[in-house]
Amino acid sequence: MESFFSFLEKRVDDCSSLLCIGLDPHVNDLSAPTADAARDFCLNLVKQTSRYAAAFKPNAAFFEVFGAEGWTALKDVIDAIQAESNRMGSMIPVILDAKRGDIASTAEAYAKSAFENLDVDCITLSPYLGKDSIEPFIRKSEKGVFLLCKTSNPGSGDLQDLVLSDGDLLYEHVAKLAQIWNAKNNIGLVVGATHIDALKRVRAAAPNLWFLAPGVGAQGGELESALKAGLRKDGKGMLIPVSRGVARAEKPGLAAAELRDEILAIRSSLIANA
Amino acid sequence: MESFFSFLEKRVDDCSSLLCIGLDPHVNDLSAPTADAARDFCLNLVKQTSRYAAAFKPNAAFFEVFGAEGWTALKDVIDAIQAESNRMGSMIPVILDAKRGDIASTAEAYAKSAFENLDVDCITLSPYLGKDSIEPFIRKSEKGVFLLCKTSNPGSGDLQDLVLSDGDLLYEHVAKLAQIWNAKNNIGLVVGATHIDALKRVRAAAPNLWFLAPGVGAQGGELESALKAGLRKDGKGMLIPVSRGVARAEKPGLAAAELRDEILAIRSSLIANA
Repeated sequence: MESFFSFLEKRVDDCSSLLCIGLDPHVNDLSAPTADAARDFCLNLVKQTSRYAAAFKPNAAFFEVFGAEGWTALKDVIDAIQAESNRMGSMIPVILDAKRGDIASTAEAYAKSAFENLDVDCITLSPYLGKDSIEPFIRKSEKGVFLLCKTSNPGSGDLQDLVLSDGDLLYEHVAKLAQIWNAKNNIGLVVGATHIDALKRVRAAAPNLWFLAPGVGAQGGELESALKAGLRKDGKGMLIPVSRGVARAEKPGLAAAELRDEILAIRSSLIANA
Repeated sequence: MESFFSFLEKRVDDCSSLLCIGLDPHVNDLSAPTADAARDFCLNLVKQTSRYAAAFKPNAAFFEVFGAEGWTALKDVIDAIQAESNRMGSMIPVILDAKRGDIASTAEAYAKSAFENLDVDCITLSPYLGKDSIEPFIRKSEKGVFLLCKTSNPGSGDLQDLVLSDGDLLYEHVAKLAQIWNAKNNIGLVVGATHIDALKRVRAAAPNLWFLAPGVGAQGGELESALKAGLRKDGKGMLIPVSRGVARAEKPGLAAAELRDEILAIRSSLIANA
């Protein structure tokens, strides 16, 4: 089997896009506070944006909040992405945004839940518990993880920016560990697009890894400086997740197309000037 | 409303126990690999051990792995603990072991899922994303959290033992932050009972906080040295979670009673010798 990031890069080439469409059925954006409405919201978004999606990223919390029915809706949305991929003849990776992190048999159960039952391709994880908490998720090269590294929220500095005795920041250390652990080409990093300096530092610490870089749009990241700081030399290596910026647009498909093209243009000019 | 830890201490006094019964319906321990079997396993354990339980701790992963049906089973187990509490006339706190950690509206959704829909009293969280990721969970003093601090797994040192520029270990820094953040008496720490030195350091950094200290029994912690290192001066401040050690016993109620008594005896001798 190909590795997760080979799979992702194939899709990136197929759709000429670095966009990761977040499926965040926040209750305020739904027609009703129900799991059915969450499902409909996501199915519509999948249908309208699939042409421009390098990946889809459903957020577990917004389904979990509806209990058992939400869990069924999540599975339906993932199935719909796979059906849409088959229809297009280009498989779109699904990244479960769950930020799990546990040990031993508990980590095994979360991995089974995500990769076998829900049948997603990738999951976001917290690195706080160390390598053995990651291991059940990276055993198969075709399944991937994005480890939290430097996140986009105001409180991210409370731990992530701590200076270690060797001078590294904690998040740089996480990036270096991920670069070492990435023996099967299936580990990436979450690095907020709002932190340009962090993007540069993490890119230096992990030259080959893919980043999932939230913060563009609703969270206020500047796209060009983020891409300049974070893209790899091959013009890949960064997935740009957007959710509200596309979902709340009058025409989500158009909003996704425009953002895809904007990213493409910046990327082309960066490669041309490199 | 009383704070979460006042509530817990009341229950600790009522049952003279520091035991936290883990509800981990691992598929290998079930009569069948189904959500129904997971429910039955937990309901039996709740019934047999409730007299000796200062708290119950269902682990989300072992329910989540059964998808929507697992989520329903989890809710049924939590409801059964509340019914059993009412029957006994002493409310037993429920700690959802979920190790969640996310930001903004996503953290709000996880908090709503745990505290409103599932109606648990407390949840385990990862501290990696910083204070704003904790905030939605600690807003109400009667709802509590245990933050991962120094965990019991082999890889816990990968991040948690890193030495900071000020000489503290990362987990000590987390303990100090938790001590500061604990304005409403509803933040505790997860500190593995397998790490005696860590228990001492965390107790020094956070003299008042409650610890959830896994690792006794199946994970091999030594009970007496752990209690000596981690108990507060008032003989409280440590919950000892056990799951397999009780669940796999021929008579789980008897195993829980014996462990409760063993902890009590050690605690009495420590207080007498203090």
